[in-house]
Amino acid sequence: MEQLSFQDQINDNGCYGCGPHNRHGLQIKSYWDVDEAVCVYHPRPYMTAGPPQFLNGGIIATLVDCHGICTAIATAYRDEDRPIGTGDQLWYVTGNLNISYSAPVPIDVPVHLRARVKRRAKKKMIVECTVSSNDTPCAAGEVVAIRVPSAWLTSS
Amino acid sequence: MEQLSFQDQINDNGCYGCGPHNRHGLQIKSYWDVDEAVCVYHPRPYMTAGPPQFLNGGIIATLVDCHGICTAIATAYRDEDRPIGTGDQLWYVTGNLNISYSAPVPIDVPVHLRARVKRRAKKKMIVECTVSSNDTPCAAGEVVAIRVPSAWLTSS
Repeated sequence: MEQLSFQDQINDNGCYGCGPHNRHGLQIKSYWDVDEAVCVYHPRPYMTAGPPQFLNGGIIATLVDCHGICTAIATAYRDEDRPIGTGDQLWYVTGNLNISYSAPVPIDVPVHLRARVKRRAKKKMIVECTVSSNDTPCAAGEVVAIRVPSAWLTSS
Repeated sequence: MEQLSFQDQINDNGCYGCGPHNRHGLQIKSYWDVDEAVCVYHPRPYMTAGPPQFLNGGIIATLVDCHGICTAIATAYRDEDRPIGTGDQLWYVTGNLNISYSAPVPIDVPVHLRARVKRRAKKKMIVECTVSSNDTPCAAGEVVAIRVPSAWLTSS
């Protein structure tokens, strides 16, 4: 049976990076591959860095951030042995995002992200994420994901 | 006389974050305020985090990255005592981007960025950048900007 993406199970998420219904957004999709989460993203032609042949670093940051946070959320549901999006809603936000860029990412081929939870505490997870293109590592990121109550969704 | 933005003086920049002619992009504008560079950005309604009232963390990362890199470029021209975009083209790329998020950024008011070069070496600058909204600090970032030859623009 085909897996549903994390994002297609998380409720009420209008996020520019990972909300499935944000029609101007990236609409990334993340899936389990055993204990790692994978995401393949097809850049749009306008998402360029300075040179038109490379992907923008801010878009790469958005991919790492959203794939990382969704991996934390999926892990939290998995830890409680229930499907994503069922029962009490579990949410994480980004406390810190750190990305090292080692090679330009071509804009005309898919970008591959692979994330895993490196450390976890009661209210926090550290998710590490690699970014590669054409089987070449291009960036490595770390997301500090902080658990927030679901009331955060409607806070001001 | 009104200042021209850094971005309106840098040549051949199609960047999603800071290219003035990328019509799908953010088109940020950065200006000197003595030794700091300032940028005011008006988020678009679809640039949301999970909740619709907050700005997406990836967009914040894009703002910090592009404002930081453009500050490094403007500083490099200033160091050589020539206007941005004149003579040999000076370019920097992001080696590392590190952002700590301390408070949500409302999506419906302008975001203020303020950057300054904290350390510099021959081929590298460290730019620090604060992000605030309604006079409240919301995030702080650091960009490691690496000098690249202008041939980078057409490299593969």
